[in-house]
Parts: sequence; C-alpha cells; structure tokens
Amino acid sequence: MTELSKGTLYGVGVGPGDPDLMTMRAIDLIRNAKVIAFPTLHGTASFARTIAAKHVPEGVREIPMVVPMTVERGPAQAAYDTGAAEIAAALDAGEDVVCLCEGDPFFYGSFMYLYARLATRFNVDVVPGVTSVTACAARAGIPLAARNERLTILPGPLPRAALADRIAGAESVAIMKVGRHLRKIRDVISELGLMDQATYVERASLPDERVLPLADAPEDAPYFSMILIVKGGDPWL
Amino acid sequence: MTELSKGTLYGVGVGPGDPDLMTMRAIDLIRNAKVIAFPTLHGTASFARTIAAKHVPEGVREIPMVVPMTVERGPAQAAYDTGAAEIAAALDAGEDVVCLCEGDPFFYGSFMYLYARLATRFNVDVVPGVTSVTACAARAGIPLAARNERLTILPGPLPRAALADRIAGAESVAIMKVGRHLRKIRDVISELGLMDQATYVERASLPDERVLPLADAPEDAPYFSMILIVKGGDPWL
Repeated sequence: MTELSKGTLYGVGVGPGDPDLMTMRAIDLIRNAKVIAFPTLHGTASFARTIAAKHVPEGVREIPMVVPMTVERGPAQAAYDTGAAEIAAALDAGEDVVCLCEGDPFFYGSFMYLYARLATRFNVDVVPGVTSVTACAARAGIPLAARNERLTILPGPLPRAALADRIAGAESVAIMKVGRHLRKIRDVISELGLMDQATYVERASLPDERVLPLADAPEDAPYFSMILIVKGGDPWL
Repeated sequence: MTELSKGTLYGVGVGPGDPDLMTMRAIDLIRNAKVIAFPTLHGTASFARTIAAKHVPEGVREIPMVVPMTVERGPAQAAYDTGAAEIAAALDAGEDVVCLCEGDPFFYGSFMYLYARLATRFNVDVVPGVTSVTACAARAGIPLAARNERLTILPGPLPRAALADRIAGAESVAIMKVGRHLRKIRDVISELGLMDQATYVERASLPDERVLPLADAPEDAPYFSMILIVKGGDPWL
C-alpha cells in the first residue's frame, strides 16, 4: 500500500456547545464522514458527539474513546493509546477519520493526545473552532481584550501561587476547567481584590447556560465552567 | 416609539479569513441582513466584508466605517463615533444591524468600540467566531496548550520589557498584530533563547498564507501576522 492511499485524520473543532456555532467546514466534513471518533468521559454521553449530532450521517462508523476522569494520567493515556490504534487501522485501510473535538482541537483539547500519537505517521488536517473563552465573553457581554491589553488563559487546577502570579500580571484573564477548583480560585481572586471584576459562566451558548457575578457562583460548578476577569481600566472608547 | 420596536445590533465574528470557517449562525444572520456595518482600514477593502462576501444579500444597506491607521487614537475614535451614530439611527428606526467583525468581536476586535458606544442604549447580541490564534495553530500544526499549561496572548506593539516578562512566564504565547513590530519581537525572543520554538504565521487559512520558522520570517510582515511560541516541555502523550 502506498503512502498516498492512506486516509487523512481530521481534527475538527465543533465549538463551545450551540450546534449553530460550528463552522461550515466542520459541518461539511461531518456530513461526509464515513468514520468519526470522539472522546467520551466515563459514564457520560460525548459532549462533542452531542454538539455534532444532527449532522452525523446514518451508518457512519463510530470510534468512541472512553476517557476516565482520574488525576493520574495513566488510565487516560491508555484510552488514547487504544483509540489511536483503532484510528490508525482505519487510516491505514485508506479511510478518512473525522475526530470531533469540543471547542478547538489545539486549545486545551484532548485531540493533542491523538495528534502526538498519529501526526508523524499520517496526514492530519486541523479545523479550528470557536473556543469556550470567546463564547463565554460573548454570552456575558464582556469584551475580553483590545489594543495593547494582555490576555492570559489559565487552567483552574493550577496551584494558588501560580494562579495569583498570572492573574496579577494581565489586564484580562480567563480561567478554564473551574469545576471543583472553584473555592480555591475564588479565594485567590478575592485576595487580589478582583471579585467585582470577576464573572462566572457555566455551559456558555447552551440552553441551560448561567452567567453570574463570581460572588454568586454555585459551590458545585461543573467541569465546563469558566471565570472571566476583565480589569478594564480602559473604557474602550 | 417603544423600546421593543428598536432593532438589535449583532456583533458577528466572521473568523480568521477562510469563508468556510464562518459559523452557521454568522452565515444565517448575514444572509438575512437588511443592514450590515463593517470597519475598513483607510484605502483598503474591508477584510471582514471580503470574508462574508458570498453571503451578503443583494440590496443590503451597507455602513462602512473608514478607520485611519494612526498611532493617535483620536481619528479612529471619530470614525467609530460617526459609524455608531449611523448604526444608532438604523436601530432607532427598528432595523437590525449586523456588524461584521474579523475573527471574534470581543477578541482584539474593533467591535468593542461600537459596543462601548451602543450597548447601554440598544440590545446587542454577540456571535463568537474562530480567532486567528487557533487558526494559526491549526495551520502551523502546533498544539497551543493542554492540561495545566498557561497560554498568554500579547499584542506586538507592547514595549520590549513587557513582552519579555510575559513570554518568560507562560508555556505558550501567541503574539498578535506583529506587522512592523517584527524586528523588536524577534530580538526579544532571541534574547530569551526561544528562537527554535517560535513560528511565524501570516494570513492563516487564506490561499496566500505563510508558515515559517521565526528565523526565516520576512522583514515586511503584514498587520495580520502572528508569532507562536510553544515551549512544549511536555510531549502531550
């Protein structure tokens, strides 16, 4: 079999949740797919698959990757090893594979685990998507950054000191994957005196989204929640 | 005239350049628009209008905002004052206005100038778009960030010291609006010993895009160019 007869792996961003925030390119690829792959957290429906659902053709072959939500990385790595092997077999047989990714494939997405395993052997085409960061800003009505402002994206699991240091040094901050780290993050923001500039956003662009001042955020924040801090010294006029 | 009879201002992200990277929601709003608005840099066609072109209906009313490219902010502010007044008149008359925005409206976009002028008086709906940051990463084949990595977005016009400080403190950095600041930025990155991890991307997702190691970047970088630095200590496996 020649190199040319191998399939292409498409890493397709499906955006933050509202199916209408998928790009035309993503929709076209999904509608014409013969094989799709997607991560699914252990015990739940795949969020990426749900977003794309109405465009997934009948009879498509599906490769779910069941990723356990553990702090240790070993079990998730094993799930991606298994998924990558199944995807590689399809690509080797000349089939294209469309991998569905929440948000954008290269922006805190699990697609990079597949990319690390497959990009040296196969042709990979990455289709960017709308990220949860700009979706949250849009839904909260909060411009993120303009002109010479610095914007920092931080994952919620970071330790206190790292969070505090990076929040202090940027005009705007988006903190992702808040979930069970909410209390720690809120403490840090409170100590920095930034509670009045902090907004909590949950499931942005979905019917059950919530946008609240951080002070009013629920204790049981879901994994797909975010905190935006926009210091906004400049009135953007 | 009651409040309810006023029109809605839609701030619509049209993505990084490839028309197929527009969202379904953006396309639907543009196709059904009676009035569109867009910024245009003095003497050039509007990039946002060009991206959206094939969906703009015949007979639509167009409100271009001719923004001068000056370092002083006064002339640009005057252009947005004039545009906002014309848009406000349409909204007051009950017409919806679809404002086309390159990338995402709230991510270093000029839409925030309209938002600052109009959001207190009118209903505004912001539709997020694919940003140039993730488009550049996709085209360069460079995952931006995963797990607990910090990602910082910096505007190229920042002074040397601010750039150096923020580049040093994040695992991944995207520097926007490179243009005539290329030499300064390259010097800073070189002094930090990060040239081998730095990639230059110009006009990502367009037919004439260029992806090069920063060391090979052209001296005459256009405004729509970006530098990605991904330190990648972690192999994402």
